[in-house]
Amino acid sequence: MQARISIRFRPGVLDPEATAIQRSLHGLGFAEVEAVAKVKVIELTLAETDRPTAETRLRQMCEKLLANPVIETFEIELLD
Amino acid sequence: MQARISIRFRPGVLDPEATAIQRSLHGLGFAEVEAVAKVKVIELTLAETDRPTAETRLRQMCEKLLANPVIETFEIELLD
Repeated sequence: MQARISIRFRPGVLDPEATAIQRSLHGLGFAEVEAVAKVKVIELTLAETDRPTAETRLRQMCEKLLANPVIETFEIELLD
Repeated sequence: MQARISIRFRPGVLDPEATAIQRSLHGLGFAEVEAVAKVKVIELTLAETDRPTAETRLRQMCEKLLANPVIETFEIELLD
């Protein structure tokens, strides 16, 4: 089973990498860029065929390792 | 206009961060994880209403700053 986890900063959390990207784009002449957000996406292949079990396990992976719940939110998608 | 750029390593390019994530997940007992890939996603808000112009400009942003074409591929999506 293929899964995708998208991890974003919570609203209000400063994202210095996104700020740096926006500043660099402006410096290169891309003045139309009004906002930039960075999303960390992790795609996983799982040896698990049961969807509810896969969702539970992916949530545990996020809570234990992949996301920092204090400053980040995560979204889980099963792709097949 | 909202746009999303997804940047991935080309097939065959080693991704040490993905390898580290997979190893850590195995160490935490998530043995069902068979493969991990990391995708860098950048979401942009553009002050541009013409779709073809936006696509051209986003491609230029990727080529000039956001992606390294030697080791990475990029995909552009316009979200509205």
